[in-house]
Amino acid sequence: MILSALLTSVGINLGLCFLFFTLYSVLRKQPWNSAVYAPRQLAKQTRRSQNGGGDEEEDDFFNFDMLLPSAGWVRRAWQVSEDELLCRSGLDAVVFIRIFVFSSRVFAIGGAIGIFVLLPVNYLGNQLSIDFYDLPNKNLETFSISNVNDGSNWLWVHFSAAYIFTGVVCYLLYYKDAEKLYKTLARVKSQSSQQINKRDRLLGFFRGRDTDVSHYEQKLEDLERNVRIEQHSLTGELPNTSVEVPAAFVSFKSRFGAAVALHMQQGVDPTEWLTEEAPEPRDIHWSSFSSSFMKRWISRIVVVVACVALTILFLIPVVLVQGLANLEQLETWFPFLKGILDLTIVSQIVTGYLPSLILQLFLYLVPPVMLMLSSMEGYLSSSSTEKSACTKVLWFTIWNIFFANVLSGSAFHQVNIFLEPKNIPKILAEAVPGQATFFISYVVTSGWTKLSSEISQLTSLLWSYVTGVFSSNDDEEIDVPKLPYHSEIPRILFFGLLGTTYFFLAPLILPFLLIYFCIGYITFRNQLLNVYEPKYETNGRFWPIVHGSTIFSLILMHVIAIGIFGLKKLPLAATLTVPLPILTLLFNEYCRRRFVPLFQYYPTESIVKKDKEDQNRPNMAEFYDKLVTAYRDPALLPVQYARNSSSLSSPLLNSQV
Amino acid sequence: MILSALLTSVGINLGLCFLFFTLYSVLRKQPWNSAVYAPRQLAKQTRRSQNGGGDEEEDDFFNFDMLLPSAGWVRRAWQVSEDELLCRSGLDAVVFIRIFVFSSRVFAIGGAIGIFVLLPVNYLGNQLSIDFYDLPNKNLETFSISNVNDGSNWLWVHFSAAYIFTGVVCYLLYYKDAEKLYKTLARVKSQSSQQINKRDRLLGFFRGRDTDVSHYEQKLEDLERNVRIEQHSLTGELPNTSVEVPAAFVSFKSRFGAAVALHMQQGVDPTEWLTEEAPEPRDIHWSSFSSSFMKRWISRIVVVVACVALTILFLIPVVLVQGLANLEQLETWFPFLKGILDLTIVSQIVTGYLPSLILQLFLYLVPPVMLMLSSMEGYLSSSSTEKSACTKVLWFTIWNIFFANVLSGSAFHQVNIFLEPKNIPKILAEAVPGQATFFISYVVTSGWTKLSSEISQLTSLLWSYVTGVFSSNDDEEIDVPKLPYHSEIPRILFFGLLGTTYFFLAPLILPFLLIYFCIGYITFRNQLLNVYEPKYETNGRFWPIVHGSTIFSLILMHVIAIGIFGLKKLPLAATLTVPLPILTLLFNEYCRRRFVPLFQYYPTESIVKKDKEDQNRPNMAEFYDKLVTAYRDPALLPVQYARNSSSLSSPLLNSQV
Repeated sequence: MILSALLTSVGINLGLCFLFFTLYSVLRKQPWNSAVYAPRQLAKQTRRSQNGGGDEEEDDFFNFDMLLPSAGWVRRAWQVSEDELLCRSGLDAVVFIRIFVFSSRVFAIGGAIGIFVLLPVNYLGNQLSIDFYDLPNKNLETFSISNVNDGSNWLWVHFSAAYIFTGVVCYLLYYKDAEKLYKTLARVKSQSSQQINKRDRLLGFFRGRDTDVSHYEQKLEDLERNVRIEQHSLTGELPNTSVEVPAAFVSFKSRFGAAVALHMQQGVDPTEWLTEEAPEPRDIHWSSFSSSFMKRWISRIVVVVACVALTILFLIPVVLVQGLANLEQLETWFPFLKGILDLTIVSQIVTGYLPSLILQLFLYLVPPVMLMLSSMEGYLSSSSTEKSACTKVLWFTIWNIFFANVLSGSAFHQVNIFLEPKNIPKILAEAVPGQATFFISYVVTSGWTKLSSEISQLTSLLWSYVTGVFSSNDDEEIDVPKLPYHSEIPRILFFGLLGTTYFFLAPLILPFLLIYFCIGYITFRNQLLNVYEPKYETNGRFWPIVHGSTIFSLILMHVIAIGIFGLKKLPLAATLTVPLPILTLLFNEYCRRRFVPLFQYYPTESIVKKDKEDQNRPNMAEFYDKLVTAYRDPALLPVQYARNSSSLSSPLLNSQV
Repeated sequence: MILSALLTSVGINLGLCFLFFTLYSVLRKQPWNSAVYAPRQLAKQTRRSQNGGGDEEEDDFFNFDMLLPSAGWVRRAWQVSEDELLCRSGLDAVVFIRIFVFSSRVFAIGGAIGIFVLLPVNYLGNQLSIDFYDLPNKNLETFSISNVNDGSNWLWVHFSAAYIFTGVVCYLLYYKDAEKLYKTLARVKSQSSQQINKRDRLLGFFRGRDTDVSHYEQKLEDLERNVRIEQHSLTGELPNTSVEVPAAFVSFKSRFGAAVALHMQQGVDPTEWLTEEAPEPRDIHWSSFSSSFMKRWISRIVVVVACVALTILFLIPVVLVQGLANLEQLETWFPFLKGILDLTIVSQIVTGYLPSLILQLFLYLVPPVMLMLSSMEGYLSSSSTEKSACTKVLWFTIWNIFFANVLSGSAFHQVNIFLEPKNIPKILAEAVPGQATFFISYVVTSGWTKLSSEISQLTSLLWSYVTGVFSSNDDEEIDVPKLPYHSEIPRILFFGLLGTTYFFLAPLILPFLLIYFCIGYITFRNQLLNVYEPKYETNGRFWPIVHGSTIFSLILMHVIAIGIFGLKKLPLAATLTVPLPILTLLFNEYCRRRFVPLFQYYPTESIVKKDKEDQNRPNMAEFYDKLVTAYRDPALLPVQYARNSSSLSSPLLNSQV
């Protein structure tokens, strides 16, 4: 690709983005669109009006301002503080936005180094020996490391840049960004429960082989004598069902007691008595409530195998289907299309776009499939299921978009490479720089376009118009969507991986990424405030995935650097790069010990503090009363209650915070 | 090697063994040798006589029976029950003997399959096409899998044998042997403390960055309110020292309280407050008492790197030194030896034995070096240090005896193989069967000889004679040795690895191994009862090492099987072997979840039971009084106490059991 072609593509996409954002700023002001652009406010108003409280303050009359594009929403999205975001959309939203902040900072610094230091060095090389002057017709490769002469000492600039960039990323992971997040998390964990809308009672969740409930009670009393135990099991609570399940929710008088039951191995056989923190009632995955240790263990293994197979072998069925769905096949299946398909333009479009369309369709199926697989693993909560699906989608994306494009051989050939670890740096160093142009246009088309479609919500908008024509019921329940973290986070992290690996190979990618992260920051802040509502909390457990992905990206960059310096006949630089991945892994290991426990459990310090505060609260008795009915499987409730149970049980616990 | 040569070697070694065992049966009856052959009884008698209790019952007069060899000691060693062994030598001794029992059972079954099924199949092949009849001159290779014809369907017998043997080993690991051990352990853990000579008070051990002790006390009270805390720090206890260290022993009124403090993360920063179970007073490694999280973490990384480097590169300095110490070098260094070295016999001995002697010397240095490295890792107890050293020595042995012999290239070449995982089965399948003869004679010479020298304790005996000449003090403290688990266990496990890998390659090795394990069983039972005294307990934590090593041996066998079936042109069998290592790893993973927690922590069930028993015991107040002085650094005590502290503090806690 030449520079002018890239600039054209960028221009077109930038124009489209601008158009969509302008369109959004007009459409969002139309009151009949608020079900699409501001469902959160609308739902709140609907609830308020259903409860008979307050008059409708919405004014429905026409105003000329409503047709003018404006940037007020950008200002509003920008101004919201992190605390307000935490309060309105939960910790997961804060983590999500932090990914943009972190990536923007990384690529602002990386971009400065890349554009002002590495790009000129690359451009001044003449390995590719292309005419120096005709800038617009310049091949983009001249801006990449491929253009630096073999054995040139200029490569030491790239070497230093790799070290500096790694240092910057690790520093940002530890101080200026992530530590802030850890501090927020620590604050949330030690904060008094009056202030924070989060799970505010630890509930030990017991599973066992035995089905005799009274036996449990006896055992539990033996185990935890300092804590008065109330035990509610499904069977105990619901006399109209006769199914006994070997699992129960157990509530404790104090958080500390629950934490003790959670952290200690109860019986001599560690698989007999399993304890887990109970999720919030709205977060429970009821179908895996009573599965045993063995069942969960086996299903987890099966799912892991299925996921690995799907991830590695995904491209094979896709390529096969693409082969089947070519022009001639279509003509055989749908003979009436023959006339149209014989037109040159149509046939060009079909043969040009059909394969990519099929690939896109298959890719759209991946997040739901991964979510389904994760739900088969038997996690007790939807949040854990989504977190697990997020990891799966991330690895899928890295493998099937990055490695499949870079290695571009048969899938089996790709797997083989990882059976010869010695050759990995060389193979990657040969293959990765060549795909720089592809990934630059991927950022511009896929990344920017996704943001436009996210903000404009065109499909939802069209759908609301279509349904609006057929239904005229104004009092209908507003369906406030949830941000699908398991498909969005992997996408953003993948752009981070592209930036990190191409940072010193083809720094031209960095400005486009930086634009993506900045627009994404504003877009998603706006969406989180107006469109998406948190259905449950993972307590920031997505951040370790972000951390892991960043470390993986750095290591991948180092491996490619080792290969590149080898190929460019600078073996000393290749050798001196070897300590870099080792140091990065050590840094990762330190962070794992230092920060990861914070994401998993509440420390004693904050639990005891919260317990003390609880003792002085007047409405604890009321809370215990509500707790009795909080954990009931909606499937076992009478039908009229079952439908509302998720919306009922959620305020039940939150009413008290 | 031909069969007759092997039989000669076996005959000589068997004769030597018989000689040494006969010699032992005579020597052990001589009263002046009891410091070598029965120091445990002698020490007990000495203590008794020092305390003035009881008359000397030992009769010192000459008896003709004393010169006659007898097998009474074998009967006595055989008859001792496991419970008695547990009581007299601790759980580690039981685990140690279990290794022999487990290995004997495995290789009794494996040997039966190998000798009666695989050996005839191998012998009837004619791949090596050697004359069929002259049995004594038969090359040993004719008994190995190398003799089976390529592509022969007889190889399916080996295939089935691999599956059956893996099944048998896993079954034995799980039921007939190991589960017994787990049951013993579970019984020990849940048994009442009156019956069992083990650490009987859990002590939380706190470490922190802060050096202000009162600050700790304040924090601890916040953290653990249900449990009354007594806190003894070094500074608090010893007014004559002014050093404050950021670490303290904290004792709890109940085991449950201590377990809670141990299992839960205390502060928000997980590296600020570290809790660990306190070792028994006699087991404490005082020098690493006050090291911080960072110091331990860094020193652990450094030690791991040093160990890996030592293990992989060990042979390089050895080969270099062997090169230096050749005949000409010796003549240059010691010119007066020139005359002797010029003799043909002497020069042959020197050139023949010197390299192997140097290798042996270096190998003898390995366990102490590994123990030193482990002690630098900053473990709080000697038992953890020894366990860590055991793992290190095991990997060292497997690498430097198995792989170095099998691959027999330069050390760098060996490392390279593991960078190309795809080729590992092929390379191993080519190299391993060729070394069968070497390893058979290794078992016969090194294994059997080691048992002879273990039982006869020749060096100790000579040493006692030498010192006996110069010293005539009868009241001297008897120095009862401790079984060096960290050097003995890896040796035994290595023989297990040899048996497992050569089981279907060259089954001729199995009878010799079986003899080794049977003699070893009797020998070490005898030694544990008479010679070695436990200095501290690891609570059976050596067993997970045994388990891991067995699983590794099985996987190694499978990898070689895959390679062999490929080489022997039976690709279907190679493919069908692939599930075997996967199944074995799954079995291992299941065992890890099912059994490993038992080795690490006491479950709530047994802790609470013990606590209840404690409440009814009359001498608890006395116990608490003693506890105050139990944990004192001997280095900080006045000199006359410091020397005796290890023997003092040990009965201190045990007096109560």
